Order: sequence, then structure tokens, then C-alpha cells
Amino acid sequence: MTMTEESILGPRRYRNAEAMLASADPVWQAAAANGLIGVTVDSESNNRLTVRETGHEFANMVSCSYLGLNNHPAVLAGAVDALTEARGTSLVLSTTRIRHNLLVRMEEELGELFGANILPGASCTTLTAGILPLIASGHLDGTCQGGGGPRVMVFDRFCHFCMAYMKPICADESLVLTCPHNDLNYLEDICRKYPRVAYVADGAYSMGGTAALDGLLELQDRYGLFLYIDDSHSLSIAGERGEGYVRSRLEMNPLTVITASLGKAFGTSGGVAMLGNREQFEFLHRHAGPIGWSQNIPLPMVGASLASAAIHRSPELAELQGALARNIELFDELLPTTFAGNGLPVRRVDVGEAERAVKLSAQLFERGFYSSAVFFPIVPKGEAGLRLMLRADMDERLIREFAGHVKELTADL
Amino acid sequence: MTMTEESILGPRRYRNAEAMLASADPVWQAAAANGLIGVTVDSESNNRLTVRETGHEFANMVSCSYLGLNNHPAVLAGAVDALTEARGTSLVLSTTRIRHNLLVRMEEELGELFGANILPGASCTTLTAGILPLIASGHLDGTCQGGGGPRVMVFDRFCHFCMAYMKPICADESLVLTCPHNDLNYLEDICRKYPRVAYVADGAYSMGGTAALDGLLELQDRYGLFLYIDDSHSLSIAGERGEGYVRSRLEMNPLTVITASLGKAFGTSGGVAMLGNREQFEFLHRHAGPIGWSQNIPLPMVGASLASAAIHRSPELAELQGALARNIELFDELLPTTFAGNGLPVRRVDVGEAERAVKLSAQLFERGFYSSAVFFPIVPKGEAGLRLMLRADMDERLIREFAGHVKELTADL
Repeated sequence: MTMTEESILGPRRYRNAEAMLASADPVWQAAAANGLIGVTVDSESNNRLTVRETGHEFANMVSCSYLGLNNHPAVLAGAVDALTEARGTSLVLSTTRIRHNLLVRMEEELGELFGANILPGASCTTLTAGILPLIASGHLDGTCQGGGGPRVMVFDRFCHFCMAYMKPICADESLVLTCPHNDLNYLEDICRKYPRVAYVADGAYSMGGTAALDGLLELQDRYGLFLYIDDSHSLSIAGERGEGYVRSRLEMNPLTVITASLGKAFGTSGGVAMLGNREQFEFLHRHAGPIGWSQNIPLPMVGASLASAAIHRSPELAELQGALARNIELFDELLPTTFAGNGLPVRRVDVGEAERAVKLSAQLFERGFYSSAVFFPIVPKGEAGLRLMLRADMDERLIREFAGHVKELTADL
Repeated sequence: MTMTEESILGPRRYRNAEAMLASADPVWQAAAANGLIGVTVDSESNNRLTVRETGHEFANMVSCSYLGLNNHPAVLAGAVDALTEARGTSLVLSTTRIRHNLLVRMEEELGELFGANILPGASCTTLTAGILPLIASGHLDGTCQGGGGPRVMVFDRFCHFCMAYMKPICADESLVLTCPHNDLNYLEDICRKYPRVAYVADGAYSMGGTAALDGLLELQDRYGLFLYIDDSHSLSIAGERGEGYVRSRLEMNPLTVITASLGKAFGTSGGVAMLGNREQFEFLHRHAGPIGWSQNIPLPMVGASLASAAIHRSPELAELQGALARNIELFDELLPTTFAGNGLPVRRVDVGEAERAVKLSAQLFERGFYSSAVFFPIVPKGEAGLRLMLRADMDERLIREFAGHVKELTADL
């Protein structure tokens, strides 16, 4: 590196593309060379995708549509209904100013379903980008516009990229720290040292496992800890009304924000933030960056969400949750992994080295199952493996076959 | 502020929520008190929105659907076709790994239409969040994976929020500067001082006006200046095939990225980055953060985009562009503003103080026209005004009436 380059080089406090690419790109390239990246398909169902050019058929073992609602006829019909009613794809202006009644209806129905004030956004990333900096600056909670002073932002080391990505933005407003995964002692030390702290984490982690929720609620109770939790991987599948792992285990309050994607088990698109009161909704509606100036959920997908909400209110939800639970149980029985028994659908088969993960994924793909090789920076170095997700719309035979192949191919481990 | 608060306060180099809220929130509150914020409506067309509770009907004068394609029957039919073909809302997994053929077809068709490699994303914000840091780190251009060293990132002072918002993330990789609007001399000085520089700007600015493109291309030619331009406000309306203001005025090359929303004149949802070569597509597909781990465009909206692309290939595009041009001309004739004659649809009627802008907007709304009061931080302090956009689907009477009301209500200025 020349002197001029050095003089402009950033501090690389929260990211380092150079180091990340040096580690990760060769593995991505290897995955691509093994035909695992940039696969293009036609779809009949989540269990049957087809590569048009070769005719290769395979089951999607990494779809986050845990209840199969992305293929539900009523959800698709909901999208068509909204197009018919609204006669348009969108109003094409900021939802801060004008919202379509279909979107308002979605906010209300999801609000009732999940027991929270619902702020919709184009995606979870959009919501997180808009909300986190205003937690850091101290303006979301308490007196809102007054601000109670900045909050120390503690990010769980394993929290999803979409949150960790915003560290530098938060750091322009307040102190940003990274906490060992689920380390409540670390977190309590920070709470003792600083009067205002926020913790940023997943509810159900995208790579498996959950937040240490009981301990977090104790810290909230004792120190006024703010909790910002992305629970995208448990919405719809946990809770009597599909309110998710976290929401079903706490009371909403002004010191908790739960975000969740509607593009996973919920089966549609966009995301929602669950908020403790209406003032926070109004405040974020005005000031949370991309939530105001970016696109929001397009109207057909709002219609699909209304249809999915109707399913959530019906007995069908419990049936689908039950089918998923049985499939998870069966898989855990056939192939016990670290997260076995936690009732959530994300499973990881650890193989250690990235190359082995890529090879295993390629072998399974050849046999008709797409599961992802995951490696750094998706998981820590040396902890590469196979990531797969169970769904309600898999049948027993599929799960038995898949587990059998994995066992055979990892017999030496 | 207590000592502890001070000790955790961030440097506020690129943002300052405290100061922004102190200036802006009272005006937003005033706008809300005047019934201009959080309006909820049913829609018949862009010219006829209705507040259900009061029956108040009004024309949307701030829709960015400049060609009216958000209401085009063929675009709506395209969404339904995709649902029928794909039998699902999405594959619900990372598009880095598997893409639906409908999305691939959209990439190809838009690639042909716009003459570029097309990388789709859930929104322009998503694309910008993913791409800008890799320009800053120096990895997008040239040898890609090797990296040519970091680039000084020069953001135009008026560039859209969605880019300015990412300054702290870029600043973790490289030096970030803010340039006076369209100041080519400033930019050339930076190019002389540093070997690698990137400029971040709008093509057609969201608040009116355009980039100083000829001068920028000269600097690119002379110094290898990287150009990152968001041209959301001219896609579809400029260029023979709707390729936009910037793309129609330059040759694609590996030192230029143009992003554009599909959620404005194009009439659908999501965004695209136009890239100079396929290597950049593959590289960003693997590494550009939210483009890989976030949602992409849902399939019904991909279908809508395919239908919009078909319109772009037909003689209808020129007809719609012509209708828009005539409406812009008529408005400029009736009510000349700073940007009169530039052929673009965004107009601003300057009134100076924010309170006056809010009052004017409220008066016009009462008379059946929603145009936005814009004020700090949307525009600089003391430059508040009324923002409005012309569209192809407005008729002459509507424009004459609206201009007449504005003239009457601002006669004293």
C-alpha cells in the first residue's frame, strides 16, 4: 500500500472488506465452481425446483418459508385481490405522507394479531437501518423528541448482518460494542457502567439457537436495558397467533422493539417492527430514514399479507405449526445436531472446514437436495457446515431420505 | 449532558439526530397538525384519491409514477401472470444461491433495454447499502478481488438520503468528503490530490435539477474518477428505451454504476444497478451485503416489471414520454420555477420559510391537490417550498387548475 493509500484508509473498526474478501471469496468461488451459486430455476413447489437447462429436479432444503405459505393459494389470491381493489402497484410516494388503506388495514390486522403497534417497511434491513441510529442517539424511548441521551449499543457477536452492518452509523451517534454471544455477564457489566444501554440481537438466530431471553428481561427490569431483537426466523411458527418466539415470551413495552420479516414463514414480503406504543410509531414514521424515503411494501404484497393474516387467525395456523413441529422432531430423531430439541426449524450440520461443507452441499445437490454450505463470514472461521431448514410442507419420506444421505456422506466425521 | 453521556457520545461526523430533530420535528409536527402527514386513502387513479372517513377527494401531485405505469392494466396483469407461473410469492432464500427464472428473465430483458448488466435488489437503498462500501474499499473496480486500494468517497451535498446515509459505513473503509452541489472544481482538486476517487450523486435530483454530467465524464476520462449515480427520478422518462437521463448520455464502463428504482416511473417495485461488466455482477452478487442476505423483488413484482419492460419496448413508451413532456412544458409556461425547461418532472415552488410551505400545502390540499411541503433536512434551511411532480396521466385541465391555485396563493411572494 502506498503512503497516499494509507492516508485515506478508514479505521476499519466495524468492517474490513479486504480481510473479509481474502477469507471468504475463495470459498464462494469454490462453491460457484461446484455449481452451488447462481443456480436458476423454475418452481412447482418448495419441494420441486427444476433447472430448466438440464432438467435437474431438487427439493429446496433452505427455504425460510417454514409453513409453506409462500405457495399457499389463498396468499396468492390475496395479492390478486389487492390489485383489483387498488388498481395499482403502489401510490408511489412516501408513506410518511400518504398511505393506502390496504396498508393501514395490514398494520391494524397485524397489530391485533401480534399485540403491538406495527410499523411496516420494505424489509427488515430497511427497518433496522432506520430505527437503530435513533436508539443509539437516545431519541426513540422515553420522551422521544426530547431524548434521554445516547445509549451504548451492544451488538451480540452473532446478530444478523442486517444489524451488524449498521454499527458504523450507530457509532456516529454513540459508543458501539460487540458482545460475546448470549453473554449476560458481559452485558450486565455494561449496564452497571453506563446508565443507558441497548442490546441488539436475533430472537431465533438465523444460524440456529435463540437469544437468552429470560436473562435479558431481567436486565431490562433491573437496568432499563433497551432490547432490539430481530425475530424473523420465528415469526408465524411460534406463538398462538404466530407472534414469534420473543413476542410470545414478553409483554410489549417502550424499551423493546421486535422486528420481523414478512418474507419468511409469513410467506409474503417486507418487514414489520413491533413497537410498544403509538408515539414511537408516529416518531419513526416521521424520522426513521429509509422507512420514510424508501419504498414500502407494494400493494399486491400487502394483499398477500392480509390473506396470510387471515390464515394466522384461523385454525389452519396451529395445523401448520404442528406439521412443522413434527418434521423438526423427526429430523432431530434421525440426525441430532447441536440445536436438536429447541423446536425451531434452522439446523446446522457442522463439518469444520469450508471446503468440506462445499463438497457435502454439492454431493447432496447432485442427489436432489439443495442445502447451503455456510462458512466465514456467515459463521465463524473453522465452524463451516451445512445449513438446512425444516418446513411444514415437507413429507416424512423427503426428510428421511435427506437425513439418510447426510448421514452416509458424513459417516467419517 | 452528564459526564457519562458525554463519554459515550459519538463523533457526529456524518449525522446528528439531536440537531436534526430539533430543527425538523417541529415542522413535521406542524405539517401533521395541518392534516398533511399520515393521510390514509383509497385510490381510483393517481388523479383521484379519497379519504374514506371524510369523502375528501384529491389529486396526487407528488406521485413519482411519472408515466402512470403504476396504474397500467398490463403492469397489473403481469403481476398476476407471474403468480400463475411461479405458484408462489418468492423462493424464500438468498438470490446469491438460487434465483427464479422469472427474475433472471427480468435481469436479461432490462439488461437489453438499458444496455448494461443488471443487478436487481429489493430497493435502491438496498443496492446502495451493498455497493458503496465496496467502492470505498476499492474492491469493485479493476481487479475486483485484488482491490486497487481504497477510494476517497466524495458525496454531493444534495445527493439523496439513501446514499448520504451510508457515509459512516464508507468512512470505516476510506476517507469520506462532502462536496458542494455540482462543484466540479472542488472535485477536480480532490482528483489531483488522490489517485483514486469516487463521486456519489443523483442523476436527476429528487428535489429537482441534474448532475453536471459532461464535466463529470471529463473528470472520469482524465483522472479515472469512479461515478456512482442514483438516477431513480429519470428512469423510463428519459432515453429512447427509458434508460434514464444518465445512461442515455454515457457509455457503460467499469468505473460507472447507475442505480435506479423500479418503484417510480417504471411503475413496479425494487431497484436495479446498471453495471459495466459481468464480473462486477458476480462479485456484488456474492459480497454486496443486503443484496445477498436480504429479500429481493417478490415474484409478482418481477412479473409486473416484465410487463413494464414490454411497454418500454413498444411505441407506447414514446407516447407516454411525449404526454409527460407536454405536461411539463405546460406547467413551466403557467408557473415558471428554477428548474423550468429542464424537461424533468420534479418542480419546486420556493417559499422560504417552512411554516409558509406547510400552510400553502394545506391550502392546496383543501382545494383538492396534494403537493408536499419540503423543508430541512429534505432541503437546506430557509429554502422550504412546495414540491410537486408532473405526470403523463394528468390532463391539461388539472394542471391549469393546480397552477392557478398556486399562483393565487403565492401572489404576495
